[in-house]
Formats: sequence, structure tokens, C-alpha cells
Amino acid sequence: MSKSFEILELVGISTESASDAVKNVIFEANKISPVAWFQVSEERGRVTPEGKIEFQVTVKVGRKLNNSK
Amino acid sequence: MSKSFEILELVGISTESASDAVKNVIFEANKISPVAWFQVSEERGRVTPEGKIEFQVTVKVGRKLNNSK
Amino acid sequence: MSKSFEILELVGISTESASDAVKNVIFEANKISPVAWFQVSEERGRVTPEGKIEFQVTVKVGRKLNNSK
Amino acid sequence: MSKSFEILELVGISTESASDAVKNVIFEANKISPVAWFQVSEERGRVTPEGKIEFQVTVKVGRKLNNSK
Amino acid sequence: MSKSFEILELVGISTESASDAVKNVIFEANKISPVAWFQVSEERGRVTPEGKIEFQVTVKVGRKLNNSK
Amino acid sequence: MSKSFEILELVGISTESASDAVKNVIFEANKISPVAWFQVSEERGRVTPEGKIEFQVTVKVGRKLNNSK
Amino acid sequence: MSKSFEILELVGISTESASDAVKNVIFEANKISPVAWFQVSEERGRVTPEGKIEFQVTVKVGRKLNNSK
Amino acid sequence: MSKSFEILELVGISTESASDAVKNVIFEANKISPVAWFQVSEERGRVTPEGKIEFQVTVKVGRKLNNSK
Amino acid sequence: MSKSFEILELVGISTESASDAVKNVIFEANKISPVAWFQVSEERGRVTPEGKIEFQVTVKVGRKLNNSK
Amino acid sequence: MSKSFEILELVGISTESASDAVKNVIFEANKISPVAWFQVSEERGRVTPEGKIEFQVTVKVGRKLNNSK
Amino acid sequence: MSKSFEILELVGISTESASDAVKNVIFEANKISPVAWFQVSEERGRVTPEGKIEFQVTVKVGRKLNNSK
Amino acid sequence: MSKSFEILELVGISTESASDAVKNVIFEANKISPVAWFQVSEERGRVTPEGKIEFQVTVKVGRKLNNSK
Repeated sequence: MSKSFEILELVGISTESASDAVKNVIFEANKISPVAWFQVSEERGRVTPEGKIEFQVTVKVGRKLNNSK
Repeated sequence: MSKSFEILELVGISTESASDAVKNVIFEANKISPVAWFQVSEERGRVTPEGKIEFQVTVKVGRKLNNSK
Repeated sequence: MSKSFEILELVGISTESASDAVKNVIFEANKISPVAWFQVSEERGRVTPEGKIEFQVTVKVGRKLNNSK
Repeated sequence: MSKSFEILELVGISTESASDAVKNVIFEANKISPVAWFQVSEERGRVTPEGKIEFQVTVKVGRKLNNSK
Repeated sequence: MSKSFEILELVGISTESASDAVKNVIFEANKISPVAWFQVSEERGRVTPEGKIEFQVTVKVGRKLNNSK
Repeated sequence: MSKSFEILELVGISTESASDAVKNVIFEANKISPVAWFQVSEERGRVTPEGKIEFQVTVKVGRKLNNSK
Repeated sequence: MSKSFEILELVGISTESASDAVKNVIFEANKISPVAWFQVSEERGRVTPEGKIEFQVTVKVGRKLNNSK
Repeated sequence: MSKSFEILELVGISTESASDAVKNVIFEANKISPVAWFQVSEERGRVTPEGKIEFQVTVKVGRKLNNSK
Repeated sequence: MSKSFEILELVGISTESASDAVKNVIFEANKISPVAWFQVSEERGRVTPEGKIEFQVTVKVGRKLNNSK
Repeated sequence: MSKSFEILELVGISTESASDAVKNVIFEANKISPVAWFQVSEERGRVTPEGKIEFQVTVKVGRKLNNSK
Repeated sequence: MSKSFEILELVGISTESASDAVKNVIFEANKISPVAWFQVSEERGRVTPEGKIEFQVTVKVGRKLNNSK
Repeated sequence: MSKSFEILELVGISTESASDAVKNVIFEANKISPVAWFQVSEERGRVTPEGKIEFQVTVKVGRKLNNSK
């Protein structure tokens, strides 16, 4: 098996907090393949039509590179 | 009406969390004129005289440019 | 006494939220010497063996430079 | 009159090209008050529901600071 | 279906203009899966053997994360 | 009254020094509304027709956000 | 076939040198699909339990975008 | 002959578009010595006295280093 | 003795000029241990209650790493 | 004559102030060929053997590109 | 014991290679207190009077924060 | 003679290592005029037709500004 890693860039969404948006997207990514580490690279958002703050947080996710890819 | 947007830079304050500081300043900005989107650009803070952590979060706020300005 | 300041770079840890990681490390630094201000410079993390998200937040901490150092 | 300048951050829109988006927002800003210079700081966009590429270009616009402001 | 997004980094090519290079790569990406937004991150190029300017524009492309991936 | 702040970007001019350009624009901004803090973000300049060096210093200026705006 | 390119972000590992880490990950990526170019974007590392320096080098890898993807 | 390259920083001007400004300065540089590659590093501009938008685009230009220099 | 260096981050204060703030903090640091070089990394400030501009300049200071530390 | 510009990167030296270092190098560059504009890109320095602070300021200098080069 | 970390900035020297300079400074830092991770932040150098290339590599070094500090 | 310096941007090439690419271009530059210092600003590369990794390292080279230029 390879000793290299790949880095994916993903965006999580939450109307609770920026950290909640991070948790949402990392848990989802972790189900497909184990997440080795992550780094937050951007935090944006908008006001939803219902008047809530929606956090959109970009995370770089590192994971083991699968040789069979 | 103009199709252009303007970006304002604001700083929100909270002793709860950075996301709470974002919510405070976006809700306040949204009352004056609808916020189309925002981006967090800096997160600073201090220890208050009462010993609390105060989060000071800078956000860039985008909104429709009003022609009459 | 000196009017200058020094800036230390510290990393706080929390499985709750990024802001909780900031509070942890600032309170710990503040016990040793009063923190004048701080700035978040990086937010990273990992999934713990127990399946929790661990936030690792780097903060730059400013404090009065002690002449006797 | 003041010798200082202020810098506004605006976003222009065009489905033609990024340069067309710059022209749209600069001409609009120039009608209100003469533009001394501008600098492009970001170029984003989306695919419109009609399937066109929409360019959203952020420009920093410099102009004379009016003392009466 | 997931509420998260993924960001891909692509490079479009054109001998017409930088905006044409963006259109080429976004239209191509949009055929495979709808593009939610894009951001230009780098603009490079070369002189072709036929003496034309070739624009090579790097764009970050955001799209809905497909759960089945 | 609001606990939020706004950040303006201004450019000061001086043929003496960069620090003199900062002083000029901060004193002018402070007359209109109290300046809470500032940060220098760019330092440019030119040679005037009289052969002097003109410093053009961009400063970000933070001040209390007025609710009535 | 497409004239566009995609950019992947990979991390190579070596206890010899940073350049060895780059070679490891580029050779591995090149076996799957030809690498057109690469760019080093970060160089980190750790001390292994055996007391060796482990270099972890992040590279952005450009390659022809396959239409059938 | 040397295998090294040198990088020059040039600014092209056009009232048509940013890409036209790039073409102008690259064609001019290419007449003196073959341009191996270029990279756009800044895009600024102004409104001309005739009311046109003038694009001023900074490009880094790479070319073979001539040993005899 | 070690051939390595350490870099400290310090903030100097002056109501005269940014360069005066640099001199203040470098002279103070130099008394404790010889300063090999410095680099200015940020320039901020405020208006004092007496109406003066206070420059707060962050400098990175390099000096010989003492083995006995 | 060409409408393009070239940008040179120069370092000025002064034991007075950073602005004095800028003046020194711009006046020297201006004698050879008129300087159209400049931008400060880095400010470093050292303590001289005589115990003075020496400012080393890097400036990018723009000037008309001479066709005959 | 604290769960926080501190980050030091150090500069390693070598006339062999940049990676050798990293190894030199990390091994030296690791003798005093275990290094948890490092990150290369700058690579500079000079030609020595003996005509060798000297690499000067700046690394940020992370290690457990000692409570007794 | 001038006390100012100029900074050139050069690219060195090597199929051995990034540090070897730096040495190649610095030795070549040093033959023409003494190199005072250098700084690595970018590290790119490609796979050669013979299947080797080619390192292309951009270095900023500082040297005394010759008055007679």
C-alpha cells in the first residue's frame, strides 16, 4: 500500500456555527475513507431566506492515497 | 437598479464564540440593508477585565449596490 | 518597565469547537502572564481514535515584554 | 479640499468576460464620483440557469476623499 | 443527498482570452456535473510555436458532493 | 448603541515620510469620527514633477459602527 | 479528447530529503496517469519514533483531464 | 549555453481588455528574446481623460538566461 | 556553540514614527542578546487619549540560538 | 516608443529611517531613468557594528520600457 | 500536564542542502525538548567567502507546552 | 559606488534535487557578479521524456547595484 496522501477540498454547511459546519463535512468524508487530518482554508456564508446565518466552511482533508485509484 | 455589489468590512464582538460574533454583526448589518453573502477575513480577541475571552471577528459583507448612493 | 510587547505562537486543543480550543489555550497562557491580545492564525484538526473531531487552533498571543527576561 | 483618498470594494457582473464586468462596475462608480484608479482583487463566477458563464469580479476603487463626508 | 460541496482545481486553455479559457473549462466541467460556482486562482500562459498567446487559467470549481462517491 | 465596528480603507499622502502620510490621513479621519485603531496595508509612491518622493500609504481604519447609518 | 487539465494535491513522504519525498509521490502519481507538471506548496514533517526526520511535502500535480471521467 | 532562466516583471496597457494588455506586452517582449512562459501577477487600471477604462496588467515573463549577459 | 538561530516576534511602540518604534524595540532586544537581523511584519496603531498617533510595529528578530537554553 | 513598463526590484539602505532608505534608492534609480511609481515590498534590517539600526527596504520600481533595450 | 502546544521559529544552516539544514536544526531542538512536528516557512541563503552555497532554512517547530514555563 | 542592491529573479534546473537546482543557478549568477544573498520563492517541476523528475526552482538573487549600469 502507498505511503502517500491525497488532499481533497470540501465545503461543509451549518446554520449553527462554523465548527458545526466542519464537523458535518468531516464526519461525512470520514464515512467514505478515514480522514487523517484537516485544515480550514476559508469561512464564508449567507443569510438564508428564513433569516438564519448559514456558515459555509472550506476544509482541506488529508487521507491515505489508495493505490488502486 | 444596479447589478453591481459593494463589499463592506465589519467587526463583530462576542464573549461566547467566534461564530456568535459573526452572527451579531451580520444580523445588525442585515437590518440596514439585505446581506447577500459574507466572508470571514480575520479573527482576533482579548481577555476582558472580567477575565472573559472576547472574540473580535472581521467579516467582509457583500450587498446590492444602491444606485442612489 | 518596558513599553514593548512579545508575540508567542500557541496551539489550543478541543473536541467541542474551534472557539473552545482558543479559550483553552488563552486561559492557560493568561495564568502565567496577562494576555494583552490574540490573533487566530491557523485552524487544523483530526478525527480522534474515538471518532471525535479534534480542533487544533494556532493563536498568536501578545503580552508585555518583561525587562528581566 | 483633502489630499487623501478612500478605497471602496465593489463587484461587477457580466456574462461576456471578466474585463466587461470590470468596465460595468467602474463606469457605474465613475458616474457618482470620479475613479482615480482601480485594482482587481478577486474573480469568481457561476453558471446561470440559462447556461451562461457569469463573471463576478471584485475591484478595489480609489477616489478622492470628500471632506464633507 | 449530501448538503456538502467539493472543490476541484482545473486549468482551461484558450488563444483568445483569459475569460475564454475560463468558459472552455467551466462548460466542459458542467457537462459532467453541475458547477455551483467557480473562482479563478491563477493565470499563466506561453507563446505557441505559431506565435500566438496561449492563456492557461486555473479555476477552482465548486459542486454538490455526490454521496455515492 | 452598536458594539460592532466598521473598517474603512484610506490612503494618506506625504512628501516627508511614510509615517507622516499615516499621520495625515488618520488625523483627517479622526476629525469626522473617532478612530479606534488602524493598520497599514500598502506603501506605494511616485516621484513628483518637482523631483520629490511622494509616499502614498494605504491604512485600514477601524471605528465604532453608528447604528443610524 | 479534452484540452483542459486537472490539478491534484498530494503529499509525499521520505526520511531522506524533501526532494526525495517529491520524487516518491510524483513517480507514484505518474504510474496511474502521466504528470504534466507539479508545484511544491508546503513542506512539513516530524521526528519519527526511531529518531529520524520525516519530510512530508505537499505537491500540486497537473495532468490532462480525461473526458470519460 | 545556460540551462537557467530569468524572470522579468513587465506591465502591459490596453483600453480593450486585460487579456489584450497581456498580449501587447508579451508580443513586445517576444520580439527582443523568446518568451518561454508568463504569469499574470496583478491587474490594475484607471479611467482615462477620454472616459475609457485602461487596463494595466503586470506579468512575470520567463526566458532563457543568456550566458553572455 | 550552536550554528542555528531563533526568531522572536516583538512589538515596538512610538508616537514619533514607525521607524522609531522599530529602533525602540530592537535596541531593547539587543541589550539582552545580540540581534543578528530583523524583519518588519506588521504596522498597526491607534490614536492615544492625548490625540497622538501611536505606531505599533511588529518585528521578527533573529539571533544566535544559545545551546544552554 | 513602447507603451509598456518594466518593474525592477531594488533595496535601499539607511541608518535614519525606512522612509530615508526608500528615498535613497529611488533618487539613485531616478538618475538613470525616470521612475514612474514604486511600491515597498519588504522592510528588513540589522544592528551595525557601531550599534546603529540599519534599515534595508525593498522597493519595486516601475518605469517606461525602452524599446532599444 | 497541559494539552496545549507552543510553536518556535528556528533557522538551520547547511552547505550541503536545504533538507540538511532542516535536519541540523530539528535534531538540535529535539535534544532540548521533543519536537512534535515542524513546518518549513522560508528558504534563504548566501555564497560563503569559500565560494560554497550556504542554505538558511526557517522552520516552525511545534512542541508540548510545559506548564512550569 | 552605490550602497543600494538589486534583486533578480532566476530559475535553476536539476534532475537531482531542489537544492542542486539552487546551487546550479547561484553558481552561474555568481560568475557574472557576486551574489550577496538569495531567497527561494517557488519550486515547480515536470517529468522529463526520459522519466526523470526535473526540479525548476525560482530564486530571488540580491547583489550590489553597479552605478555604471
